[in-house]
Amino acid sequence: MIVVMSVTASAREISDVIGRIRSMGYDIHLSEGKERTIIGVIGRGRPLDRDQLALLPGVQDVVPVSHPYKIASREYHPDDTVIPLNGIQLGGKDLAIIAGPCSVENREQIIETAHAVREAGATALRGGAFKPRTSPYAFQGLGEEGLKYLAEAREATGLPIVTEVMEPALVPLVCQYADVLQIGTRNMQNYALLHAVGESQHPVLLKRGMSSTIEELLMAAEYILSHGNMRVMLCERGIRTFETYTRNTFDVNAIPVLKHISHLPVMADPSHAVGKWEYVESVSLAAIAAGADGLILEVHMDPEHAESDGRQSLKPERFARLVEKVKQMAPIIGRQVVSPAPVQE
Amino acid sequence: MIVVMSVTASAREISDVIGRIRSMGYDIHLSEGKERTIIGVIGRGRPLDRDQLALLPGVQDVVPVSHPYKIASREYHPDDTVIPLNGIQLGGKDLAIIAGPCSVENREQIIETAHAVREAGATALRGGAFKPRTSPYAFQGLGEEGLKYLAEAREATGLPIVTEVMEPALVPLVCQYADVLQIGTRNMQNYALLHAVGESQHPVLLKRGMSSTIEELLMAAEYILSHGNMRVMLCERGIRTFETYTRNTFDVNAIPVLKHISHLPVMADPSHAVGKWEYVESVSLAAIAAGADGLILEVHMDPEHAESDGRQSLKPERFARLVEKVKQMAPIIGRQVVSPAPVQE
Amino acid sequence: MIVVMSVTASAREISDVIGRIRSMGYDIHLSEGKERTIIGVIGRGRPLDRDQLALLPGVQDVVPVSHPYKIASREYHPDDTVIPLNGIQLGGKDLAIIAGPCSVENREQIIETAHAVREAGATALRGGAFKPRTSPYAFQGLGEEGLKYLAEAREATGLPIVTEVMEPALVPLVCQYADVLQIGTRNMQNYALLHAVGESQHPVLLKRGMSSTIEELLMAAEYILSHGNMRVMLCERGIRTFETYTRNTFDVNAIPVLKHISHLPVMADPSHAVGKWEYVESVSLAAIAAGADGLILEVHMDPEHAESDGRQSLKPERFARLVEKVKQMAPIIGRQVVSPAPVQE
Amino acid sequence: MIVVMSVTASAREISDVIGRIRSMGYDIHLSEGKERTIIGVIGRGRPLDRDQLALLPGVQDVVPVSHPYKIASREYHPDDTVIPLNGIQLGGKDLAIIAGPCSVENREQIIETAHAVREAGATALRGGAFKPRTSPYAFQGLGEEGLKYLAEAREATGLPIVTEVMEPALVPLVCQYADVLQIGTRNMQNYALLHAVGESQHPVLLKRGMSSTIEELLMAAEYILSHGNMRVMLCERGIRTFETYTRNTFDVNAIPVLKHISHLPVMADPSHAVGKWEYVESVSLAAIAAGADGLILEVHMDPEHAESDGRQSLKPERFARLVEKVKQMAPIIGRQVVSPAPVQE
Repeated sequence: MIVVMSVTASAREISDVIGRIRSMGYDIHLSEGKERTIIGVIGRGRPLDRDQLALLPGVQDVVPVSHPYKIASREYHPDDTVIPLNGIQLGGKDLAIIAGPCSVENREQIIETAHAVREAGATALRGGAFKPRTSPYAFQGLGEEGLKYLAEAREATGLPIVTEVMEPALVPLVCQYADVLQIGTRNMQNYALLHAVGESQHPVLLKRGMSSTIEELLMAAEYILSHGNMRVMLCERGIRTFETYTRNTFDVNAIPVLKHISHLPVMADPSHAVGKWEYVESVSLAAIAAGADGLILEVHMDPEHAESDGRQSLKPERFARLVEKVKQMAPIIGRQVVSPAPVQE
Repeated sequence: MIVVMSVTASAREISDVIGRIRSMGYDIHLSEGKERTIIGVIGRGRPLDRDQLALLPGVQDVVPVSHPYKIASREYHPDDTVIPLNGIQLGGKDLAIIAGPCSVENREQIIETAHAVREAGATALRGGAFKPRTSPYAFQGLGEEGLKYLAEAREATGLPIVTEVMEPALVPLVCQYADVLQIGTRNMQNYALLHAVGESQHPVLLKRGMSSTIEELLMAAEYILSHGNMRVMLCERGIRTFETYTRNTFDVNAIPVLKHISHLPVMADPSHAVGKWEYVESVSLAAIAAGADGLILEVHMDPEHAESDGRQSLKPERFARLVEKVKQMAPIIGRQVVSPAPVQE
Repeated sequence: MIVVMSVTASAREISDVIGRIRSMGYDIHLSEGKERTIIGVIGRGRPLDRDQLALLPGVQDVVPVSHPYKIASREYHPDDTVIPLNGIQLGGKDLAIIAGPCSVENREQIIETAHAVREAGATALRGGAFKPRTSPYAFQGLGEEGLKYLAEAREATGLPIVTEVMEPALVPLVCQYADVLQIGTRNMQNYALLHAVGESQHPVLLKRGMSSTIEELLMAAEYILSHGNMRVMLCERGIRTFETYTRNTFDVNAIPVLKHISHLPVMADPSHAVGKWEYVESVSLAAIAAGADGLILEVHMDPEHAESDGRQSLKPERFARLVEKVKQMAPIIGRQVVSPAPVQE
Repeated sequence: MIVVMSVTASAREISDVIGRIRSMGYDIHLSEGKERTIIGVIGRGRPLDRDQLALLPGVQDVVPVSHPYKIASREYHPDDTVIPLNGIQLGGKDLAIIAGPCSVENREQIIETAHAVREAGATALRGGAFKPRTSPYAFQGLGEEGLKYLAEAREATGLPIVTEVMEPALVPLVCQYADVLQIGTRNMQNYALLHAVGESQHPVLLKRGMSSTIEELLMAAEYILSHGNMRVMLCERGIRTFETYTRNTFDVNAIPVLKHISHLPVMADPSHAVGKWEYVESVSLAAIAAGADGLILEVHMDPEHAESDGRQSLKPERFARLVEKVKQMAPIIGRQVVSPAPVQE
């Protein structure tokens, strides 16, 4: 941390700031310019609050020189984190394609969809059993029944299951059925939930909060990582901006940035990011071109009758066409799409 | 709901849309213009998903004509909701002033602060025992020990306690100690938590999500209200914008808007909204002038040593000066600040 | 400026950075910590580009320690800038109230409105002759004819004229008629226009760009000030955020911040900030309570037939009621509303 | 337009609204539901202001059913607009690649860069002679001298010139030298300038305002088109959001949306969108994958000494590598990159 004293700071104020820093167990390095004094904080002491220093008389600004996340940073872990999922190396050379309906609506729907997305090239099956809905009057998901249907769909197709968990108390239940726990955008800073999935040691797909910064996303990952669960996938799913034509604004910049500063895999969710099925293919290709490690997509057999998110769901044939293009694009950026292992029958 | 058909919609497409609407139990009203047909949805049927209709062939747009919240709306409940708190009528003519530290740090601190803010004119005491922190490495609060100190401070001063609850499992515990449950900005759409506080029947201070719209805030309130808990106070605490000079942007517009479209009391949290103590007084007066039902403010005996949020905390003497100005301003806008009842000794 | 070297920077990289800084005419101050080296840039040399330094090998970050505006800052000019306008001291103790229609629509309208707002307590008359409209098909203003009507209205009421100028070539023409040149929100970074009004030496009301930061607003003011025109009033008029219920979000925080870091007067435009007349009074009172030096308000005799912005225009009687409340509130925050000098007849 | 009356609207209010609509030359279609009345506005009358109708007693909301741009819409002009540029069909199958420095710094620099980018595969040369700079103290460009150097560079390489014009009075001068007039992000709503370039009949590259919506971008294009200049290219260059890690947020969603609703070519400017050279390649590939008609990129021989935007400028060898990848990606999305015609020597 660097403490920039104001041009009018007195000698007394400067020595008080130095005293405070030293009392926390740090050394200081003093830079006395003609205009102002700058104090560098050196070494490792007790946690030093930037805001507290900023309040001391004579201080103009306090500038951090390191980022607040540790385990999530590439400095801590220079190599890419690779998470095996259904025979592919997620975060490695393979591109992952997770597909399925927004909500599990009934047994037939999820099993039929699982077969369809598997056929089209999906790596894993998504589907919500517990649904976060803006309205208390909207369909809230089938709950444990939905989890059971997902497990049946896995049985039938071999596709691993990605499904959301919304509260700490349900983490053990969801872990019984799911291969990957999804943390939704509204829960990215639900610290009790991050704690619980951290303890679970289950792979986690962590969606970026709809108005969270890149740094906050990494800090949320840090909550999970700091509980010893290293299998965290980040997911860019669109951020909230002033633009209302699309549901959200897909922050494609975040993909190369996250790959650069973190070692964790970075997935992309174009369905929520753009919110209208007709633009999902373009945004999906953009995500892959930008370096994403895979896609998570909403696919529905009959979007016009979907319980939720029909507006942004692809039909299986459109999804298959998209997977085809992703396959063609992959080698240009040094990636590949592996066909899933055949179902064990 | 109004369904706007595109100019190129065929007769078949129009009749299909009508059939779909009727199949859900609604009547329709048809407006056939020269350019396009518009279909009004009439009556009450099963929940009709806007997105599903938008997907039907020939549909250009679907426009809702009513808002999605019901119990939270002033149409449902034309009179202001008034919540009694320590002898004042919150949401009525009285202005409420809730003050105290960001975190309960130790027994002495919270009791000393409670006396100080009471002296200066506070209506209630705030203080966090469970703290949501961006970093897993930062101080996370004293937990139940903090709740006990808060109860002691209430004992000593008569001030009711406002404190945050962060997870559903802890709602019963926090209810044992707190007079008002605070839902923090990161948890505004933590539906499991909203459900739990709704069931608790305890008064709730619901903070607006830092990037939630006014409508989403009312939908979050609706979650609590729909569980039969009518004692909900909304709280504007600043929204996230492109401006970085201040911590957040206080959305002062939201105050008259919320008072207009909802009957629930609207509190203001200028401390988090601006993030620097030197601007808290100006923003507090602005909130009151705009029609807020009260303030929730961070006050600390020694901000330079605060465990959290020192940068935005007022010292008791600044807080007292602010209360004085609020008292002067109140009659101009038809409000009053009542001095709290004397401590029972 | 402070250059933070990365933890892996080599001795050679450090000495190259130092060489580059010195070659621009600066001294340096070196702080060699155990983890990293930090280089302070001292003295005054040729303009040093932050981005250029950031590109040098081994550099992690470059942190400015001073703000980029000079003449606009309170450090440069500690006392409030006061601009006389129709007998009041704008930026001093007096609150200014500028009112009138969005557009000058015809001779009768503007003269009638001028009398009405003067009667209700306005300090100056606003009205647009050249109108920036989002649509090329919308009413674009009466042009010079409108300016002539404004001059007649001044003649009739004694109220000085505030009106917008949209292009450099028209600055001389508008100066002939206007007392204050308004720069609209879309032109805040129209540098050719800022240059021209800077040269004009006419008082300027500079509206904040709808997505400009506080710093960018001060930099735009700096363009005008640096041409020797010191009579610049800043104007907060709402910023663009994700919230769509209101037209813009009034950034009330910006008022105390601008008053703190700059010496220039700060006006508030609640009409554009909230966009619906029913909320204009609340936001106006909030602006005054927060420390604004005055208001600029849209007032129309018949909003339902206004050529533009009728939705946010007050009728004269509502405007009069608002002025009355501002008068009552002024003394609480150490201000006053002076009644305008009687018309010279 | 559809006028939604409130549930409490009286018969008198309804008939007044109908009278007002008819007085403007429209027919109406009445839909009288059990709860509320809805009035459809039919036919073509005088311009009808949405805000005016919204102010009439009893009106709850006024909903437009058509978009405000006409000539810019694909309904008006179903086929893609194709603009020939240096032998390629911009907006057709060919991808355009415009490259060069942010600023023309001197004669040697621009000619050397022109050769380098041509060698690497550029279609056109960009370079600023008139520079919009946030600070009045920063380098403002070489002015006409810069234009002359650009013309020399065209002479030497055959590359057409894309350069910015900042004020109406300079349009004739810039037209003498430039092949394409660039309107910068700060001037997207500088209507006098849009008017002037509309009159010029020169091809225009119109950058999206940094906080302009997709609709506002199309309305700005409409200003130019409505003056009879049909050669307008739109350009997505990043929007302003809460994220500060990157300079802007590249709105990749906007690319397929603009291609869908408008016939105009859509270019992408990844350099400004992300602001750091190390991420420019990823964002460029994303833009092409999403369907952009080409790229405009900042390339500098020596970014560490660039007068402006060095932080985001590619060196020629990185640029060449990027062009190579674009060439590989083009066929997957049905596009091609044509090598420029050989220089006539």
